[in-house]
Amino acid sequence: MRIPIDRENTTPIYRQVEQFIREGILSGSLAAEQRLPASRQLGADLGINRLTIEKAYGELEAKGLIYTRIGSGTFVSAQHYTEENTQSENGSISLPKWQDDLGQFMPLVLFKDEDELLLEMNHPDPISFSSGIGDANLFPVDEFRKVIHGVLKRDGMTALDYGDKEGYLPLRQMIVQILGSQGLHTKVEHVMITAGSQQAISLISQILLKPGDTVLVEKPTYSGALNLFRSIGVKIVSIPVDEKGMLVEQLEDTLRAHRPQLIYTIPNFQNPTGACMNGSRRRHLVALADQYNVPILEDDFVGDLRYDGFANPSLKALDSGGRVIYVSTFSKMLMPGLRMGYIVTEGPLFERLVEWKVVNDLATSSLLQRALESYVTVGRYQAHLRRATLMYGKRCEAMIKAIHNHLPVDIRFTRPQGGLFIWLQLPESIEAEELLAIACQQGVGFTVGNQFFVDPDEGRHCLRLNFVAQTPDRIELGIIRLSESIQQVLHQKNGSY
Amino acid sequence: MRIPIDRENTTPIYRQVEQFIREGILSGSLAAEQRLPASRQLGADLGINRLTIEKAYGELEAKGLIYTRIGSGTFVSAQHYTEENTQSENGSISLPKWQDDLGQFMPLVLFKDEDELLLEMNHPDPISFSSGIGDANLFPVDEFRKVIHGVLKRDGMTALDYGDKEGYLPLRQMIVQILGSQGLHTKVEHVMITAGSQQAISLISQILLKPGDTVLVEKPTYSGALNLFRSIGVKIVSIPVDEKGMLVEQLEDTLRAHRPQLIYTIPNFQNPTGACMNGSRRRHLVALADQYNVPILEDDFVGDLRYDGFANPSLKALDSGGRVIYVSTFSKMLMPGLRMGYIVTEGPLFERLVEWKVVNDLATSSLLQRALESYVTVGRYQAHLRRATLMYGKRCEAMIKAIHNHLPVDIRFTRPQGGLFIWLQLPESIEAEELLAIACQQGVGFTVGNQFFVDPDEGRHCLRLNFVAQTPDRIELGIIRLSESIQQVLHQKNGSY
Repeated sequence: MRIPIDRENTTPIYRQVEQFIREGILSGSLAAEQRLPASRQLGADLGINRLTIEKAYGELEAKGLIYTRIGSGTFVSAQHYTEENTQSENGSISLPKWQDDLGQFMPLVLFKDEDELLLEMNHPDPISFSSGIGDANLFPVDEFRKVIHGVLKRDGMTALDYGDKEGYLPLRQMIVQILGSQGLHTKVEHVMITAGSQQAISLISQILLKPGDTVLVEKPTYSGALNLFRSIGVKIVSIPVDEKGMLVEQLEDTLRAHRPQLIYTIPNFQNPTGACMNGSRRRHLVALADQYNVPILEDDFVGDLRYDGFANPSLKALDSGGRVIYVSTFSKMLMPGLRMGYIVTEGPLFERLVEWKVVNDLATSSLLQRALESYVTVGRYQAHLRRATLMYGKRCEAMIKAIHNHLPVDIRFTRPQGGLFIWLQLPESIEAEELLAIACQQGVGFTVGNQFFVDPDEGRHCLRLNFVAQTPDRIELGIIRLSESIQQVLHQKNGSY
Repeated sequence: MRIPIDRENTTPIYRQVEQFIREGILSGSLAAEQRLPASRQLGADLGINRLTIEKAYGELEAKGLIYTRIGSGTFVSAQHYTEENTQSENGSISLPKWQDDLGQFMPLVLFKDEDELLLEMNHPDPISFSSGIGDANLFPVDEFRKVIHGVLKRDGMTALDYGDKEGYLPLRQMIVQILGSQGLHTKVEHVMITAGSQQAISLISQILLKPGDTVLVEKPTYSGALNLFRSIGVKIVSIPVDEKGMLVEQLEDTLRAHRPQLIYTIPNFQNPTGACMNGSRRRHLVALADQYNVPILEDDFVGDLRYDGFANPSLKALDSGGRVIYVSTFSKMLMPGLRMGYIVTEGPLFERLVEWKVVNDLATSSLLQRALESYVTVGRYQAHLRRATLMYGKRCEAMIKAIHNHLPVDIRFTRPQGGLFIWLQLPESIEAEELLAIACQQGVGFTVGNQFFVDPDEGRHCLRLNFVAQTPDRIELGIIRLSESIQQVLHQKNGSY
């Protein structure tokens, strides 16, 4: 125990020891029944006489804070920690000036977690449409448990070493095969592993953008990317999305006007709108980015989850080399808690990303990379994809049917061809945030639209529904509750409907 | 399979399909024996006639690239992928201009991995002193396997969810208890989990430093921190370390002259020198930083691994609140592949770090946090610490004895009181890099000193030895080989010794 002893202080040393341990007990950092070091040991550690320690222990024992059991040692006695101790101590901290200066320079737009709000309402049977991921029940947790067990048996400590800086080679090889089977050819030397797609987007943005630069995004777009761009301090310019994806027709003018350093796009089943970019816009986008010398960051978070329509090539598949930076993840399809994503790109950028990843966090957990590699084969990925596509497609239908049957006709939405989300546009008279408060009371949660816009105000009449996380009957029940919530809002507004 | 079909292209569609699959097979992204989608399915996916797909498959089959097994499907035939295919394709990529402009702006100092060099020499029994971590054999891999199995059984999918943004609460509570037992009192609301201490240092530096700012470090210091600071684009000023740690006597002049925005220090068993900062310097450092309004980043990567001398308080324990940012890790003591570290700090900085972590990678693997929490108790941590201290202390002795017995007297070093490393200063006539090349041939590896200096040239006569990763007899054998390598270098230089 490294107790801070100040020999030049006028407080006697035994008192310093006594104070330190007392504060630990009262603040809860020394728990009840925790064993304290023997006085001889603590004296030796600190270079002070054991009698001094014994004197300190004696005072603590007299105050009832610790007790000695003959032959087994000295222990902290039953709980002395209280909230009041913590409160009073917290109030007494006077922070240094540099902490005051931290306040402003990262103007993130943070929203209250919708699921938290839903749970706070204590509805007996809450239904959440606000998840950003797939159905947890489809995640192969039992198989994965066996796999991770097997990997630790097979690889022992090697599984817990740092591993390669680009990521575990067999996993990168497997990713090349999976991408190949889905229609994107690449090579292992162009694939690097990241801690989820969020880290992928973050690393790329931090390499390609500096404060004052401009990034071009879709309107609306993924809130985690918007907050990332805000935190880097770049200007964010957005191009609207319609049911066929980004309005690439507006791109050239925007490129000319703003000269962005990066285009961020989610071409497949976009978050939050669910829109899928059509083929001619894809080609046009790749050609324009090339002409204007702007890198494209393609976020393909659920690209293979299609229920309807024809497959469009990924932008990366249209890239003649080194122009499109492709990012995807295993979080949505398999397991979010793995935090496992990857980047596909070529050229000097690849090396730069690997270097930047190394200074950021050295490596992503080697154990989890090995477990994922051991679990995911092309066959398993495709089987999982088939199961998910079949199940999620039915749920998509169920939600569309429920919306048709139960929601007012002046609520607009587009039937998604895949992915996880349906995007609703409410009439001007309804604020999504206001609706959420009532919906949570009714036992249904959704994601308010404002977090997906550069100017949050633009999304205040929109909301995002995840249609994959609930069964069809619960989807209908949730939409009925949403409908009732809408009636209630309108009723409050007009006095009648 | 999302094959990029261009309907406006003059190449017939069947030919486009054939080309795409052929390229995939030749480049290896479609593996031998991989099943191709049925022609009906692929036609439906792409919105083209199945006969078109069949024509493409027919051409591929005629070329021997795929084969059909009646009743079971179409498969890629045995390996067609060759290195030549890859080579020729690689050469043909012409990169966009923005890739050329990436070249310079992150002047990292990257060195060849010493272990790789050692392995390349194909010595029958290589001994590496270049590890940055503890002995892999002491890591509790079997217990950990059981624990992770148990956590997945207990928590199911919850263990694979994103989890809290500050980190898994019970793990943060356990860290408070462990720190308390080691002599640092804190509270759970001041602890956040990171992906190893590298991410902790990286997040802190990116919040507190911007390009053009100045950071103050020890000379020499941890190379991963130096490269991080280089990559952020800050000016790095260093203060020498002697056997009692940073020369805090020079600090005030340096603070006045350079007005740094951050002081980065490793007070305990410093990397690479092994030096431990004494108590009066610690107090002086904390007081000066407060006076000059500069945050201190305390990297306590092996603070509890003491074999000799008295325990000194962590700088954080001397902090009246919000001045010292404390960083530590479970990588060195338990398992590096977990990538699990943590930050202790108070004030607005804490919230800023959590936000910045979220935009960087959302969260650290919830599964591994739960497994670590389930494994690490105060008692287990202390038992592991006792075992490691006992074993590593003996190895430290063994290396010091071997150095005394076998190395030339003009090699200087200081006996470390703890940690992992001994730092050797070679005579001016020997370059560490030159020595490494010969030592690797002799079957012994070490870390060259230059990577630990802002100006790498200053470290060219230094080297770092890890004394904990080898058993005492192998330590002696390794030092004998090092001695022979030194003789050989001197012999080459002088023609005699």
